[in-house]
Amino acid sequence: MRIVVLAGGIGGARFLRGLKQAVPDADITVIGNTADDIHLFGLKVCPDLDTVMYTLGGGINEEQGWGRTDETFHLKEELAAYGVGPEWFGLGDRDFATHIVRTQMLSAGYPLSAVTEALCDRWKPGVRLLPMSDDRVETHVAVTLPHSGSAAGSGERKAIHFQEYWVRLRASVPAEAVVPVGAEQAKPAPGVLEAIAEADVVLFPPSNPVVSVGTILAVPGIREAIADAGVPVVGLSPIVGDAPVRGMADKVLAAVGVESTAAAVAEHYGSGLLDGWLVDTVDAGSVERVEAAGIRCRAVPLMMTDVDAAAQMAREALALAEEVRG
Amino acid sequence: MRIVVLAGGIGGARFLRGLKQAVPDADITVIGNTADDIHLFGLKVCPDLDTVMYTLGGGINEEQGWGRTDETFHLKEELAAYGVGPEWFGLGDRDFATHIVRTQMLSAGYPLSAVTEALCDRWKPGVRLLPMSDDRVETHVAVTLPHSGSAAGSGERKAIHFQEYWVRLRASVPAEAVVPVGAEQAKPAPGVLEAIAEADVVLFPPSNPVVSVGTILAVPGIREAIADAGVPVVGLSPIVGDAPVRGMADKVLAAVGVESTAAAVAEHYGSGLLDGWLVDTVDAGSVERVEAAGIRCRAVPLMMTDVDAAAQMAREALALAEEVRG
Repeated sequence: MRIVVLAGGIGGARFLRGLKQAVPDADITVIGNTADDIHLFGLKVCPDLDTVMYTLGGGINEEQGWGRTDETFHLKEELAAYGVGPEWFGLGDRDFATHIVRTQMLSAGYPLSAVTEALCDRWKPGVRLLPMSDDRVETHVAVTLPHSGSAAGSGERKAIHFQEYWVRLRASVPAEAVVPVGAEQAKPAPGVLEAIAEADVVLFPPSNPVVSVGTILAVPGIREAIADAGVPVVGLSPIVGDAPVRGMADKVLAAVGVESTAAAVAEHYGSGLLDGWLVDTVDAGSVERVEAAGIRCRAVPLMMTDVDAAAQMAREALALAEEVRG
Repeated sequence: MRIVVLAGGIGGARFLRGLKQAVPDADITVIGNTADDIHLFGLKVCPDLDTVMYTLGGGINEEQGWGRTDETFHLKEELAAYGVGPEWFGLGDRDFATHIVRTQMLSAGYPLSAVTEALCDRWKPGVRLLPMSDDRVETHVAVTLPHSGSAAGSGERKAIHFQEYWVRLRASVPAEAVVPVGAEQAKPAPGVLEAIAEADVVLFPPSNPVVSVGTILAVPGIREAIADAGVPVVGLSPIVGDAPVRGMADKVLAAVGVESTAAAVAEHYGSGLLDGWLVDTVDAGSVERVEAAGIRCRAVPLMMTDVDAAAQMAREALALAEEVRG
């Protein structure tokens, strides 16, 4: 079975670990979000690709869900001592090696897809990990930052990098707009469209529908390839009980005018793209609404408390795909 | 008193620490060797500048004489796990920060002299540290590397980076030639010629006369400025009892046809440049030969066993300078 998964960071990575356990013999291609990539200290950092690679390769910090296990932060301490920022992005000493190797290879002229393959030669994630694009796409978030000491409501409107919104500001102000800068000009990375065309099923893990799966779909050609593939496309809701399981999906959904409910996210993807949708059991009441939108829907437990739980979710998604296939 | 010191790495740095203790109120400008700089992992590494900066700024690993105190090597471990070399150059996690900041500033267009000043803003070495040049100069060493399994004497002649000769090969094969590539086209960094012109005394610490002080002197204009300054120029022998105190001065002296003796090094600099020369007490027998070459010479203890010993050496050098001044 050939499975294509569109993945963001932590949620995507943990779902993939469950998927591998559920169907160990499947041929899995992961199309990873690169729109939250950021240049820091002259280095190219790809948080989502790395989270997938470290999680599936056994190097992830399990507690926080990102970054390396057995990590130290001496380099970061020194950068701070030099007064060189940003200080709000937590790069550990081991993690830095990945960014140094990546940056060196990119500087030598290799595209990100080739670099990612080289990094995976070490981590052996057990999936084929492709960046959505070798071209630069960068999610910017429009926010209004209050002037210090000024009345609420007044402030400076500006566009900031998604990582600044999420990591530095911790999504503490509303996202007024979310723009994947460069997406329109981006081309799918080599292998992306081919993998979709050859897939038996396409899965959307419980990743952020706007800044993770949404940016992947914003690369021209990818949404169309999925819609045209003629195979079941099944997603898992990242919203459980009207709140995101983790992250700031509610904030960025509001920016695109979508309510933070499992049903609304399914409708946002739409029946033109999505064939099946899993909501959590607490959202069983929304199954009817989703099905009314032309998307087959089931309510199952969607909390990835451990690998077994994630594996069970993967089995439910694949079962729904078979049901769709009919 | 304005003192200009031409410095290499460990020997130069330790001498400077003694000099600062001996004359705490002196205005000291250090012209640092940059010909052993190397690009590693896409980063610009300046071993001699950093050794001076760390030593005078209190961050040096005292035992080994280079690198940072309280250091870890997790990043390097990870690079090795990625199969990315070279593995023979020991960059620690804290040390990496310096190279990342430097590389980022250089990429932004700042010359090395401005970058060095910015790094020293943190370390406050108590001297003005100038690279000899903002231009790239790189010492290459011609060696014959034996073919594996072949008879001694046969082999491949090639030019390798000085760091590869010294750190990887540990100077285990003869240096057949030593060439500061790029030196002829290099210009002294801003402030170098001015500092020399305004100096009251110029000192050559017990640094390597070929690959440290020699490469600084190879930058067109520096040797001439020192010779023309009209102030005492006093050096300290890095050779004690016919062997280098540390490093591979004997190997590179052989490459330029100079014997490894305190007297021969003085003659190599020559009376056109050098006014005074300190040899170790074990080399007292060579004082007469040095003076016969027109260079005033004294035999004093030259082992920098601690800061006090280095300070005493600095006082002896300054005393000899005053004697020369007459």
